[in-house]
Order: sequence, then structure tokens, then C-alpha cells
Amino acid sequence: MGTRERIIDAAEQAIHEFGIAGATTRRIAVQAACSEALIYKHFAGKEELFLAVLLERLPALAPALAELRQSVGKGDVAANLTAFALTALRFYARTVAIGGGVLGDPPLIAGFRAMLAETGAGPHLPILALAEILRTEQRGGRLDPAIDAGAAASMLMGACFHRANLACFVSLPDDDESWAGTVVATLVRR
Amino acid sequence: MGTRERIIDAAEQAIHEFGIAGATTRRIAVQAACSEALIYKHFAGKEELFLAVLLERLPALAPALAELRQSVGKGDVAANLTAFALTALRFYARTVAIGGGVLGDPPLIAGFRAMLAETGAGPHLPILALAEILRTEQRGGRLDPAIDAGAAASMLMGACFHRANLACFVSLPDDDESWAGTVVATLVRR
Repeated sequence: MGTRERIIDAAEQAIHEFGIAGATTRRIAVQAACSEALIYKHFAGKEELFLAVLLERLPALAPALAELRQSVGKGDVAANLTAFALTALRFYARTVAIGGGVLGDPPLIAGFRAMLAETGAGPHLPILALAEILRTEQRGGRLDPAIDAGAAASMLMGACFHRANLACFVSLPDDDESWAGTVVATLVRR
Repeated sequence: MGTRERIIDAAEQAIHEFGIAGATTRRIAVQAACSEALIYKHFAGKEELFLAVLLERLPALAPALAELRQSVGKGDVAANLTAFALTALRFYARTVAIGGGVLGDPPLIAGFRAMLAETGAGPHLPILALAEILRTEQRGGRLDPAIDAGAAASMLMGACFHRANLACFVSLPDDDESWAGTVVATLVRR
């Protein structure tokens, strides 16, 4: 395993154990058995390192979106969207601590914002991708054309993101499966 | 102004400047011109102090929910919900850094979780309150009875919460007003 990989692993471990706030480059360097200087040789800063953890170590939404895109025109729209919502929920549950940690750290968020603006990336892109898939289903006559696809995508992703956050604070009464099924049924109803 | 108030003000200021991660009791004590021991005399821990900031200093959702409840049966349902969504969006924009900071700090989140479980409070309660309002509008025949009120409330609050988070990371293309209007129209459509 290369040094870069070892540093990313160590960062992931440190975030898991101590949170973003406690995942200092000193701790990461000890865990990766390298110097702090070597971390900065591979990553411009903590922002870049944490983004690498997000993009390279955590389950991504991209495969789930690709699978949903593959299922356009096939099977049951509501069932496909429910399966996607459950994957999104799991994804957000895994990433909520990193995203939250960044939000709780003003200098880090400024760095993230600049980096995302430069690369054109961002946590809003899955909403746009989902909206495009919903539009394709509308063109195929499988989804109510009166639905605004962008708004529907905002609501489905937003509900999953919010629920993943809430679950960190309280025990939610209903289980994820029935919750996701009811949310999608309400969203796609005719 | 009493000591307790002065400490809460200092904590709010420290969170704003340094984030949750940097809002140490030492910094808060300096700002409040008191000892760290005095902070712990008024608050069992950082969790309790940060919760006091959330509950006593930030604009609350409760008045917005009360206003929405007052408007049941009056005016246009979609317009009422859109106005509420905009208030929720502003509320979440103000609280996202505190909530996120807690999520990025594993010991803090454990303390928060225990405290919320003990008091029966929690960030999921506004969803339940909104769902109850939607049910009342359904009973009055002003909202499609096919809508699951709980799911609709999850989606509306979730979309607002998610958008407040996204806005910290990227510049969103559409303005809040038209976004909220389209989301509500998609949610309440018949």
C-alpha cells in the first residue's frame, strides 16, 4: 500500500474515532507511521485529505444513481426509487459525521467551498442526477408529468439526508424500509 | 445580565467565530469574563451549554409552526406552506453549524443523544408537528387525502434542512423563494 493510501486510511480511522475536530494531522501521522510533513506533501491541506476520504473510502452515491438509471423503463418506478432511497440513507449515515464536522469548523468549510467551486464538484450534484432520471421516466409515461422533477429530487434526497442526521440524535420510531416506501409513494402518487 | 446569560452569549459568539470544535470552555470563559469552573456550575457540560444556545438564542421553529397552525383553513394551503418552508430554511441555515459540529464530535454527540432521550426532546419533533397540521388540512378537505402526512412532512422539512446544508458548500443556482414554491406545489398537487 502506497503512502497516500496509508494516509487516507489513517485519516478515515481518526475521523471515526475522534471526529473531524479531533482528527488532527498529528494523530493521522502517528497512525500512518509517517511525518506530518509527508501528509502535506500528498495533500494541500486537511480539506483535500478529508475530501479524499469522502470520495475514495466511503460508499458513493454514484453507483446507486447508475443502477437507478439502468432501471429506467423497467420494473416498478416506486420500488426502484425506494431501493435507491435506502442506499442514499445508508450513504448519508456514513458521511454525516464528516460533512457535519466540516460545517462545525469555519476555516475548514471555507477551504472546502473554494475547492468545490474550483472543481465544479459538490454535494448537490446527486439531486441534479436524480432529477434527470425522473425526467426520463416522465418522458416514458411512467411518472406523473405534473411532478417537477427537480423539486421531487430535492425532497427525496433531502428527506434521506435529514433522516440520517436525525438518527444520530434520536431513535426514530419507524423502520427505514417502511419509511422509504411511504415517502416514495407520496412523492410519485397520481 | 446574569452570569448564565453572559455565558450563553459568549458560547454563541465563540461558536460563530471558531465553530463548535474551537468553542472551548477556556475561550468561552475569557469572553464571558468568568472562570471555567463557573461555566460548569451553570451547565453540566458543553452539551448542555450548546443546547441552551440552540434553544434560547437561535430563531426557533416553534413560532413558525404555531403560525402555520393558526393559518389552518385560511388562505391558500400552498402559500402558507411555502412561507413556512422559507422560515424553516432560515432556521436550519442558522443552526447547521452547531448541529454539524456536534455530529463531528463523537463524545459530544453521545452526550447530546443521552440528554435528548432523557428530556424527550429532539430535532425530529418539528416533522411530527408539521404532519399533524397537514392532517388537519386534510380533514378540512384542503389537502389531498392520498398524501401521507408524515411522509410529506419528512420531505418538506428534509428538503429545507438539506438545502441549508448544501448552501454552506456551494452556491445554489435557484433562489430560495422559487425553490420553496416549486417544492410545495409538487408536494400538494392533486
